Amino acid sequence: MSSIVVLGAGIMATALATPLSDNGHQVRLVGTHLDRDIIDSIKQTGIHPNLGLRVPEGTTAYQLEEAEEAFADAELVMSGVNSFGVRWAGDRLAELLRPGMHVISLAKGMESDDEGNLTILPRVLAGQIPAELREQLTFSAIAGPSIAGEVAVRRHTSVVFTGEDSSVIEMWRGLFATSAYHVWTNTDFVGVEVCAATKNCYAFGAGFMSGVLDAMGEAAGDRYVNYNYGAALFGQASIEMIDFMRLLGGEPTTPIGLPGIGDCFVTSMGGRNVKCGRLVGSGLTFSEARDQMPGVTLEGAAAIKVIGGALGPLTERGLITPAQFPLLRHLYEVVGLDQGVDVPWDSFFGSNGSGVL
Amino acid sequence: MSSIVVLGAGIMATALATPLSDNGHQVRLVGTHLDRDIIDSIKQTGIHPNLGLRVPEGTTAYQLEEAEEAFADAELVMSGVNSFGVRWAGDRLAELLRPGMHVISLAKGMESDDEGNLTILPRVLAGQIPAELREQLTFSAIAGPSIAGEVAVRRHTSVVFTGEDSSVIEMWRGLFATSAYHVWTNTDFVGVEVCAATKNCYAFGAGFMSGVLDAMGEAAGDRYVNYNYGAALFGQASIEMIDFMRLLGGEPTTPIGLPGIGDCFVTSMGGRNVKCGRLVGSGLTFSEARDQMPGVTLEGAAAIKVIGGALGPLTERGLITPAQFPLLRHLYEVVGLDQGVDVPWDSFFGSNGSGVL
Repeated sequence: MSSIVVLGAGIMATALATPLSDNGHQVRLVGTHLDRDIIDSIKQTGIHPNLGLRVPEGTTAYQLEEAEEAFADAELVMSGVNSFGVRWAGDRLAELLRPGMHVISLAKGMESDDEGNLTILPRVLAGQIPAELREQLTFSAIAGPSIAGEVAVRRHTSVVFTGEDSSVIEMWRGLFATSAYHVWTNTDFVGVEVCAATKNCYAFGAGFMSGVLDAMGEAAGDRYVNYNYGAALFGQASIEMIDFMRLLGGEPTTPIGLPGIGDCFVTSMGGRNVKCGRLVGSGLTFSEARDQMPGVTLEGAAAIKVIGGALGPLTERGLITPAQFPLLRHLYEVVGLDQGVDVPWDSFFGSNGSGVL
Repeated sequence: MSSIVVLGAGIMATALATPLSDNGHQVRLVGTHLDRDIIDSIKQTGIHPNLGLRVPEGTTAYQLEEAEEAFADAELVMSGVNSFGVRWAGDRLAELLRPGMHVISLAKGMESDDEGNLTILPRVLAGQIPAELREQLTFSAIAGPSIAGEVAVRRHTSVVFTGEDSSVIEMWRGLFATSAYHVWTNTDFVGVEVCAATKNCYAFGAGFMSGVLDAMGEAAGDRYVNYNYGAALFGQASIEMIDFMRLLGGEPTTPIGLPGIGDCFVTSMGGRNVKCGRLVGSGLTFSEARDQMPGVTLEGAAAIKVIGGALGPLTERGLITPAQFPLLRHLYEVVGLDQGVDVPWDSFFGSNGSGVL
């Protein structure tokens, strides 16, 4: 039996207590300053209000000011904050971690500098920690198609654990894997994380197919929907994810299977990000759509601004051609520049429908 | 302006009259013996009863006994019959075609011999025609994500035309391509057609995720569905489609984009095949599920029997290992051997979640 400390008590971080608990481990959920009500609820009733479920046996909740107690004798740490909180989490962990500890993180996204250089979030997280301590830690991450609530109620889920050290990610796999939570390991850290970040961009576009129909109203009828449209965007997304491997140093086969195509599928099936894409597809500008969803975090839209925004500088530097990433470039026009949806179909699919330029 | 003769008046064959008509071409729809009522309806009212739409301007319907009139001065022929009618269509075309004519076909599937050797359907079609005539014809095919009704009402659709001769498929592209019907060309004839055939197998499995929930009934609640399950099957399907390229001589990149992943997406979104998979996922045997859908053609299930059935002989011959194609092997157990659904998750995704064995 091990103890795993989790920083952040969002739905995915909490859902992962289920497989850990099923394997007999103790989970210490430490809420951020944004999770105060969640932690209060778990302490008082055992219920995570956003998941709508009782946390599993062996899970204990801590407010942020109780973090030192939670971290006291632990060696295993999960950073459960989302992409907006990664630097904050790194700063907290810099105070709480000790040499020899292992960190696994959930946040999906990338950061970009002014020249378009993109960095995966586990590296951003690690970068907040002083080098001397950092070198005595390991960093891994969880990726792959995984809706939190389904994990929490033990629906079959197949994921990928990634990191640079195969023995470390095998150790993590041993802690998490159950008969419902199936875990593969992949040492292509950059490739897996780039898939996880970019799939959020493409899932925003998956909302367009429904939005276009919404705009047609009754004229669209209800018999013939817009799956051909969605399938074409999905196909182009798969091509661009593979192109990102070439650009950023991942293995070209990594997007095949769970990390890219599988995760893009599940993320395209619904959620806030797809809903916002649908509003934009119906004719609203992104600014108007975002105003209709006050207080909602839109990680996909944020990822489009960062990753899509990097494509211009990368093109100027000659690292990519203007013909590459036409879908993400258009998503950036829509989300970053508030332009209308006008899918550039004829720039897709290379010359042969499968991405050869 | 050209005239295109179409053998078969099903929904896909008829839907493709829309882009042809939009480009000013004449379409002559020749019904099979199964299409008699459809042809009567079009002759009397202009309405295709199964599409629920008026056929476009420039479309003329013919009963099968009027085929010679329809073929009289035509050079361009579309074989619009489905996979069950390919040999029948080839026999009819053997009587109706003349040297110099071009044939493009729609049927998706493969045939297998006792040793597991698989043949794409355009080759089966061509094989019904005497060699001397056959050598004076060209054969091409249409593939890619394309729901017929959406094509008929001009929803954006992106497809791939394939064949051995690039100038011929470019000619076909010129006839069909419109501002809504986007056409790419790919000379990997085997690769594109193998994608088109196998995606029907995997789409049957896409029904399982809903069926498993159906079996749980109210216990499943309505908040947490089963997308993680479906995403994992979709990811494994993408791996196996690429493995089929290695086995059958297609380009390993062909499934990326429209022919494989894009088409598998749209086919997994619904239809009779997915509905039957859902019934099986809920606990019925395939035989029981099929009995609940009398008179319905199930091309996906038929493809599983043929292609899945070939995996045994191919394994015995050492052309594939027992570890390859675990999803299609299970689909064959379910459809071909009437066994229950018991997804072999741990045999999926190779060692790293992306298909490397």
